[in-house]
Amino acid sequence: MDKNNSMQNLAKSFEDYLFHNLPKSKTFHPYFEDALAHMLKAGGKRFRPMLLLSVVKSNKSLLIPNTLCVALGLEFLHTYSLIHDDLPAMDNADLRRGFQTLHKKYDEVTAILVGDALNTEAFNLVANASLSNDIKIDLIKCLSSNGGIDGMIIGQAIDCFFENQKLELNQLEFLHIHKTAKLIAASLKMGAIICEYDLQTQEKLYNFGIDLGLLFQIQDDIIDEICSSEEAGKTTQNDGAKNSFVNLLGLEGAKKSADELSLKCIKTLNTFDFNLKESLEELLLEYINRHK
Amino acid sequence: MDKNNSMQNLAKSFEDYLFHNLPKSKTFHPYFEDALAHMLKAGGKRFRPMLLLSVVKSNKSLLIPNTLCVALGLEFLHTYSLIHDDLPAMDNADLRRGFQTLHKKYDEVTAILVGDALNTEAFNLVANASLSNDIKIDLIKCLSSNGGIDGMIIGQAIDCFFENQKLELNQLEFLHIHKTAKLIAASLKMGAIICEYDLQTQEKLYNFGIDLGLLFQIQDDIIDEICSSEEAGKTTQNDGAKNSFVNLLGLEGAKKSADELSLKCIKTLNTFDFNLKESLEELLLEYINRHK
Repeated sequence: MDKNNSMQNLAKSFEDYLFHNLPKSKTFHPYFEDALAHMLKAGGKRFRPMLLLSVVKSNKSLLIPNTLCVALGLEFLHTYSLIHDDLPAMDNADLRRGFQTLHKKYDEVTAILVGDALNTEAFNLVANASLSNDIKIDLIKCLSSNGGIDGMIIGQAIDCFFENQKLELNQLEFLHIHKTAKLIAASLKMGAIICEYDLQTQEKLYNFGIDLGLLFQIQDDIIDEICSSEEAGKTTQNDGAKNSFVNLLGLEGAKKSADELSLKCIKTLNTFDFNLKESLEELLLEYINRHK
Repeated sequence: MDKNNSMQNLAKSFEDYLFHNLPKSKTFHPYFEDALAHMLKAGGKRFRPMLLLSVVKSNKSLLIPNTLCVALGLEFLHTYSLIHDDLPAMDNADLRRGFQTLHKKYDEVTAILVGDALNTEAFNLVANASLSNDIKIDLIKCLSSNGGIDGMIIGQAIDCFFENQKLELNQLEFLHIHKTAKLIAASLKMGAIICEYDLQTQEKLYNFGIDLGLLFQIQDDIIDEICSSEEAGKTTQNDGAKNSFVNLLGLEGAKKSADELSLKCIKTLNTFDFNLKESLEELLLEYINRHK
């Protein structure tokens, strides 16, 4: 099986699993079950599940079927955060991935409650995986600490609060490490926990994920800036607004930062065991170089 | 130690534990840490933690210190649900327990994110308890299934959607079993899981909790109706509105239902082992009879 096929098969396994395991809610509520599935079915890169599955595949392909529901838990947690970020009080977005956002398609109550449900259900999925209880408790610790108060939530709180105030560079890094990078790092670490890699490897994958998450954000800021220059007059992405790495470092400074971080990521990739390196490279190389 | 003292000590232990373990978030966000603690510090009956602790106390008092963080997890989950229920899109409440609601004191973004954080953190607390991983996984399964899609969330979704539409009796029961009773039942079952009671006892406690939760709702409807009759002209509780047991069954019919359910609860109480019966009676007898 060639490389691309193997990664495509993994992606297809996850997509099939997701569509067969959409949240069920058979009651007399006329549309709550549809609303639960709406944003999960809307697609997206499935990046966090794929990170986890790539780590697992490198070591224990046989575990993949038992691991899909953990990967789905990651996708549930990520999806709930998108649904709540889109709410009128936050980004007030009408569209996500080309589909109406939940509060637009249904109503705000539904969007809040579907988000809440997917957050809670993420832990139910992990707790019910066919893995040992020792592994599952480590997974739940990792997911809840990186997806919660000390992770994604405080990042989002800071992002919203400082929307119209300029942050220092270290504050902007803190924001994106917490809002985005920690769940990416957790996805890799959770793969390592399932493989029962030693703590050192778990931490190394986690730190690699933090670099990766930060790199993606700097790249997004660069791409937004370039698009907004090229398409002047058109509406540009909100992400290009005040608190961006481009605005703090300048376009060239941001590119230099991204180059340094992508080089660091590639160096780290090369220090992983052969199978892990190969598996992660398949998934990540195009991302790591996308700003160039 | 007399009975009241023993229950008061348990309540004090929990309250002390809560105030020493409020969520921490030391960042440059000016008030997120305060906001996380605001509604937890506002008091309340701590009913769900006390249910869990009463079951544990009946069997293994030595476990109480290791169990407090599980009880706190229950209170976090319950508190997040109150914060989200109070949001402008739902009850749009200004006050809760005599304090400003979170979105009034701070803003809506903060209320959404604090709720999200407490939901996730509930699972972090359980996962980090000093209990065996086998017990903790069973606790997380119980909390996530009763606090999530098939429990509290669908109850709240139905409550909001049918706010202005009349429900049938079985639908109203479904609503309140899911919105309230399932988390009460889970609190008792989680105590039984910690005590490693057999599955039959766990289920018996769970079913007792469902009856108890339903009884409380019927009692609330009765008390609201009596208060609103006695204080005609004053603003009455929202709970007395369209979909109440009093409106469906009439005041006498609702009282009859409550009498039957409270009798059933007392009968069930009498079938528990002596220590469990005694412990639960201390906590519950005044509630079970409060509509009389």
